[in-house]
Amino acid sequence: MSASFATWRIRFEQLRANKFFELTVITIIVLSALLIGARTYEEVSRFQQALLVMDVAVTVFFLVEILIRMAAEKRLRDFFRNGWNVFDFLIVTASLIPMDDSEMVLLARLLRIFRVMRLVSMIPELRMLMAALFKSIPRMGYVVLLMFIIFYIYGAIGSFLFHDVDERLWGNISLAMLTLFQVATFESWATAVLYPTMEHYPYAWIFFLTFIFLNAFIFLNMMIGIVLDVMQKESLAIELESGTGEAAELHGLRDDVRELRNQLSRMEAMLERREG
Amino acid sequence: MSASFATWRIRFEQLRANKFFELTVITIIVLSALLIGARTYEEVSRFQQALLVMDVAVTVFFLVEILIRMAAEKRLRDFFRNGWNVFDFLIVTASLIPMDDSEMVLLARLLRIFRVMRLVSMIPELRMLMAALFKSIPRMGYVVLLMFIIFYIYGAIGSFLFHDVDERLWGNISLAMLTLFQVATFESWATAVLYPTMEHYPYAWIFFLTFIFLNAFIFLNMMIGIVLDVMQKESLAIELESGTGEAAELHGLRDDVRELRNQLSRMEAMLERREG
Amino acid sequence: MSASFATWRIRFEQLRANKFFELTVITIIVLSALLIGARTYEEVSRFQQALLVMDVAVTVFFLVEILIRMAAEKRLRDFFRNGWNVFDFLIVTASLIPMDDSEMVLLARLLRIFRVMRLVSMIPELRMLMAALFKSIPRMGYVVLLMFIIFYIYGAIGSFLFHDVDERLWGNISLAMLTLFQVATFESWATAVLYPTMEHYPYAWIFFLTFIFLNAFIFLNMMIGIVLDVMQKESLAIELESGTGEAAELHGLRDDVRELRNQLSRMEAMLERREG
Amino acid sequence: MSASFATWRIRFEQLRANKFFELTVITIIVLSALLIGARTYEEVSRFQQALLVMDVAVTVFFLVEILIRMAAEKRLRDFFRNGWNVFDFLIVTASLIPMDDSEMVLLARLLRIFRVMRLVSMIPELRMLMAALFKSIPRMGYVVLLMFIIFYIYGAIGSFLFHDVDERLWGNISLAMLTLFQVATFESWATAVLYPTMEHYPYAWIFFLTFIFLNAFIFLNMMIGIVLDVMQKESLAIELESGTGEAAELHGLRDDVRELRNQLSRMEAMLERREG
Repeated sequence: MSASFATWRIRFEQLRANKFFELTVITIIVLSALLIGARTYEEVSRFQQALLVMDVAVTVFFLVEILIRMAAEKRLRDFFRNGWNVFDFLIVTASLIPMDDSEMVLLARLLRIFRVMRLVSMIPELRMLMAALFKSIPRMGYVVLLMFIIFYIYGAIGSFLFHDVDERLWGNISLAMLTLFQVATFESWATAVLYPTMEHYPYAWIFFLTFIFLNAFIFLNMMIGIVLDVMQKESLAIELESGTGEAAELHGLRDDVRELRNQLSRMEAMLERREG
Repeated sequence: MSASFATWRIRFEQLRANKFFELTVITIIVLSALLIGARTYEEVSRFQQALLVMDVAVTVFFLVEILIRMAAEKRLRDFFRNGWNVFDFLIVTASLIPMDDSEMVLLARLLRIFRVMRLVSMIPELRMLMAALFKSIPRMGYVVLLMFIIFYIYGAIGSFLFHDVDERLWGNISLAMLTLFQVATFESWATAVLYPTMEHYPYAWIFFLTFIFLNAFIFLNMMIGIVLDVMQKESLAIELESGTGEAAELHGLRDDVRELRNQLSRMEAMLERREG
Repeated sequence: MSASFATWRIRFEQLRANKFFELTVITIIVLSALLIGARTYEEVSRFQQALLVMDVAVTVFFLVEILIRMAAEKRLRDFFRNGWNVFDFLIVTASLIPMDDSEMVLLARLLRIFRVMRLVSMIPELRMLMAALFKSIPRMGYVVLLMFIIFYIYGAIGSFLFHDVDERLWGNISLAMLTLFQVATFESWATAVLYPTMEHYPYAWIFFLTFIFLNAFIFLNMMIGIVLDVMQKESLAIELESGTGEAAELHGLRDDVRELRNQLSRMEAMLERREG
Repeated sequence: MSASFATWRIRFEQLRANKFFELTVITIIVLSALLIGARTYEEVSRFQQALLVMDVAVTVFFLVEILIRMAAEKRLRDFFRNGWNVFDFLIVTASLIPMDDSEMVLLARLLRIFRVMRLVSMIPELRMLMAALFKSIPRMGYVVLLMFIIFYIYGAIGSFLFHDVDERLWGNISLAMLTLFQVATFESWATAVLYPTMEHYPYAWIFFLTFIFLNAFIFLNMMIGIVLDVMQKESLAIELESGTGEAAELHGLRDDVRELRNQLSRMEAMLERREG
């Protein structure tokens, strides 16, 4: 029995590593994504039945696929050690929960969308891209915090000063911060935000221009800082790598010269012995 | 006959390499571009006849020019080995197809526009620029794929949630993705897309802000990644180049020291022989 | 008495260095920020009394906290040597000034907002970010001056030429410069500024396009200049650092070879003496 | 007479090099700029007389200043060798031409605006910035040409296809290219250009999206190309600089080792002579 299980495990392992199996999974993911997209078109409602059948088929396929991958591991614990496996497992189990309730249908549909994310876990290059993104989060963190503080201060000031100009834009600090975000993206910031405000407060441009400059300034510095930060690490790595070659050569040379000295010392001793 | 052909081939080769001939071709391309531009003005319709004559003249000139370049090659096969030659050949032959049909006139005109692209194949600096562009396509590919996945997921969610808010913006997944592209370029994203949606779904800002941040974040990381990627290759190349000088010097030095050692060993042997 | 004072100073110093105390201060700053934000909501006016009490509590806490930090210094003068301490001191004292006058209430509120800035002085990473920002100001200065000159020239020209097209956009040089800033951010620059102007002056696009290109050109050059400037310093620093290792190795090697020479000279002298 | 002239020349030279004189010139330039700015305000028309007097005073001062600088040169020819001097000379002489004609008044005013540009020629840091800008023009040239070709092709296609959708946006190739520039800056590109066009041509989004992607792609590549280009030169310069130190050390070391070898050869010869 145990031997038979081991045979099966090896077969599952081969299947998982199979290029064709991988391609099939990717194709199914893309198909499932197209299925979700198709649902957003009104005209397809008459294919309702067909879509439902295909949806069940995809769900079953994904369940089988993940079970194969779990069975291919020596221990089940190893499967959950990989973050991407946990990610796949959550997506697959989430779509298994039966949601017949008409209210829940929307949620069920939304959960099915995240299946597209499985494309990221299947393609190694995308997985690397995502890893690089996650690694850069802490580096961005403090800049985002600094920006949030600036938005908060300007939001509070704007909300106090321009409260009566436009209730919908400056009614409270949340609305004011949203308006400031709109200003930061330069969307209708002058025609829809600055000019109406300047009709009541002619010096409002000081508020907006300092805000825009401060944002641009911090953004520019952050960009430069990040580029330099990453560059510094890179060049250090390159220096170390290229350094080893030359440093080793130099070290070997110095050993050679030391050997020369020992030899010379022996010869000098010989000459002195004769002399004496 | 064959000798006469060879003489002609050499003459054509000289003509092709001639700076004046090259300048003439460039001038004709620019003229043909101006001709196409002139057609877009209504007022020029009375020069219709003159424009038609000039158009035929340009077409004939391009035909002769490409025939000269083909005749200048030792073997015709060599001509088609160069991608830019194939490109020129396609553009020239496409404009030869007679299209008198009034419906086809538009297509014929559009094909003639691509003659301007021949400027790229004529000027070496532009050819280099285009080559650099093509080389960077694979590097961009996976980032574009990742972005497409994000657009698809947000497009599906947006289409499910905001379907009833604005049929023209969120009617189906294609329209939703186009709307999201508009949001990504910050064009009227707040005044025309966010605010009308927030009137029905007050928490819609979460959808839009996460989308904008995700996009900005990936774009920033891509920029940094590309700069670093290219930089790394550059600095490695520089290291190797500058390394050869110093490494050679170091290597020579080590050989010198080894020679010294051999000489010393010979001397030591002599001294020992005496001693003995 | 003096001994007792010294004991207290040490206790205050321990308190200031305490991680828990630091966390409490940060929590109070965040709470005070939320308090300011809450005031911008109309609905909270019934909690007026509670908010007032909390505001007094925060003010008292900040006063006590800064007195503790002042008492923890050996000499009061040392406290004011640190720019961030002066910054904290100003913010705390500013909120102490009693402003019961209804007109002054707004100013008092605005001053309280700047308490959020104390978050920057409390978190070392933000303090470093701000220091980096301040350091980059002189580098940006001359580019901003050059940009201002361009804005001034275009503002004057625009104000002379387009004065009659739209009084609100081009009425005087200040309005014209504000309009140009709007153009520089691409906000409705074509639909609201260029096209109405082109109805009167068909060649106005030359004015706007040269302005946009000039701006983009200077901005691009500035970006590149700054990146290179910082990079150059970085790589010089790395060169120096990595250089010391190899240079020291090379120097030691040269000393070794000189020693060898001295030894050989001694031996040669011995051999010559025998010969003679 | 000649001696007296030489004395005067030296005095003028001292005056030109005088820091205080330089500051006075900069102050007058700024004042003259403020004068031009003041003219754009309607309210100042009652100070008309005062402004006119001040304008004459500034013109005379600039004339005297440039004459002093010309007199300070050993030969007049040297004065015109410096591009910035020619620039100053043209600006000063241009404002000397009498323009009483009411039509010419506008031109006279415009010419006076360019006096602000003299600030650039007075401040060394700005002069350096401008020199860096001029140096980067050729590097940008071919990218601008490539962009122009793309704009021309898309302009012609847009003008042929969308001619009937909106005469003002796509009437002829010039208007179409201006519209495309608006699209390239993302200004109302979707709401005012794409959506009205899509009502007639549902596939118009292909035209606009390929255009935007092509532009973004070329722009990104250009940025990267320029950064790398400048970086490469920088790092080569640094390599050469830092290289000289180590290379010299290595070269010296090799000479030392060669001397050692000669010495050893002499010693070996001595030993062999004895042996023989």
